[in-house]
Formats: sequence, C-alpha cells, structure tokens
Amino acid sequence: MADEVLFDFLHMEMVSHVYKEQRPSKGELDSKDRATCVSILEGMGFRVGQGLIERMTRDSPSFKDELDMMKFICKDFWTQVFRKQIDNLRTNHQGTYVLQDNKFALLTQLSNGKQYLEEAPKYLAYSCGLVRGALSNLGLESVVTAEVSLMPSCKFQVVIQKL
Amino acid sequence: MADEVLFDFLHMEMVSHVYKEQRPSKGELDSKDRATCVSILEGMGFRVGQGLIERMTRDSPSFKDELDMMKFICKDFWTQVFRKQIDNLRTNHQGTYVLQDNKFALLTQLSNGKQYLEEAPKYLAYSCGLVRGALSNLGLESVVTAEVSLMPSCKFQVVIQKL
Repeated sequence: MADEVLFDFLHMEMVSHVYKEQRPSKGELDSKDRATCVSILEGMGFRVGQGLIERMTRDSPSFKDELDMMKFICKDFWTQVFRKQIDNLRTNHQGTYVLQDNKFALLTQLSNGKQYLEEAPKYLAYSCGLVRGALSNLGLESVVTAEVSLMPSCKFQVVIQKL
Repeated sequence: MADEVLFDFLHMEMVSHVYKEQRPSKGELDSKDRATCVSILEGMGFRVGQGLIERMTRDSPSFKDELDMMKFICKDFWTQVFRKQIDNLRTNHQGTYVLQDNKFALLTQLSNGKQYLEEAPKYLAYSCGLVRGALSNLGLESVVTAEVSLMPSCKFQVVIQKL
C-alpha cells in the first residue's frame, strides 16, 4: 500500500525541489528556467530507465523487432513502474509510436480540473526520460514527448531516431 | 523486481543531483555545502515520511504509547519502505531509541569496502527525514541521526524531544 505511493511521493518531492531551486529569489519561472527543470528531470528519468530495463531484460530472450520492444515497454515496463499497462499503442510503422495511458499514475494526485492542465508537463518530464532511457538501453535512440488533454489521461509520443 | 529497485534508483539519482547542484563550478564541497545537501535531502524525506505514515495508519487503531509507535516504525513502516524489518531496537526508556538495520537497502548498492564509508552519510539523510516525518505525524517531535561503522549495516538514533 505505502509501497505503491513511495515512488509517487518521492517523485513529487523531486519535481518540487527541482522547480524550487531554479526559481529566482522572487518572481516566476521564465520559459528558459522551465526548460532547465524539464531537462534535469528528464535526465534523471533517463538514467533510472536505463537501470530498470537492464534488470528487467537480464533473463529475457532478445526482441524480434522494434515493435516487439515497444510492446515490452507498454506492458512489462509500464506495469513495473506505474502499476498498470499502457491502454493503447498506435504506430505509423515508420518509427513513430503513441502510447496512451488513460489514468496515468503520476497525474492522479492532481485534481483533474482544467486549471491544473498547465501544471501537468512538469510531472511528465521524468517519465519521458524513463522511456527514452529504457529504449536507449535496448539500442534505440528516440525523442519522447508527452501531452495531456484531459487529466489524468496522457499520451506519450516516441519518435525513433534512425541512424 | 524492478519495482523493488525503482525507489532505490530514484533515490540515488536524487542524491547525486542534490550534491551536484551545490558543487561550485570547480573543486570540492566544503562542510557548509555538505550540510546544505543533507538538509535538503532530509527535508524531502520528512515530507514523504509524513505522507506515508498517514496512509499506513489510516485504518489502524491508535497506539498505546511511544514504544508502540517505535515498534510500528521498525516493523510495518520499515518493511513498506525498505522491504525488511529493523533487526534490532534498543531504548533507554527515556526517549532515546537505536534502530539497527544489518543490511540497509540504500547501502547495498555501494561496495562495502572501507573507502566508501565516508560516502555513506549522504545516502542516509533522506531516510533520517523519513523517520522524523513519520514520527512527527504520530505526534512525536524527534531528532534522527544515522551512523555506519560497517557497511551495509546502519544504526539510526532517534531522540524524542519532550515538550
């Protein structure tokens, strides 16, 4: 029970800390400050994602193809981290994937009123990093972004970078 | 499996981030910088500890006395957070408690060579905060410190502040 929320709580503290340390003594964060925060959180997620996937795939057979890896992320990886699977995976079969989570764990603590929509991105950066780190360890370089249109549902877009 | 290490990994990233941000452009951290880092991490732990214990004790009957609360921390709380119980609890019956964990989860990732002993304190600050936060929510103000003499075993000393 507490186990479930330990990660969520720590994540919220971390987001709040990273945003606080960037804030100038008075006043609001400008867009450059925000970008710095997002980048710090994304970087943390990246390294954690690498570590997690390494453990999770230690005894797994290798993957058939890119889609097979994405399915692993949507099912096994997501369940380990967020306690549920991705609800919907779509792809254009050209390296772009959209992962939809209808009840994203790190947003459920926020009210789903519209006024919090603009707060949502800061709770997504770390998770984008997690996915990018995991894929990177599987040999796929990617760009991962997220968007929220109706809380607590969330879409992650993964674009694989072809070498 | 990954579930177990998700918290540990995030914790390590957080420690590394907090220490990095305090470091001057070149050179070592001085003792003032170190104290700032410890205090940041302790504060994060404090707030997470408050949140966790609130959930965990929601449906519990109230506690008989101070010792009863400490036992709850050693058994239920510790198991939720660190996946094992405290191995040994000692008290002078005057408000001082020593909690010994012979294999502390957040130290097992470090080599147990002597050369890492001085690195250990930064991995303990957050956990001291967790305990202080949990006790605070149970109505006990305390000072919590930790020491390591032989890795990965660790002693937490809790001194209850009488009003």
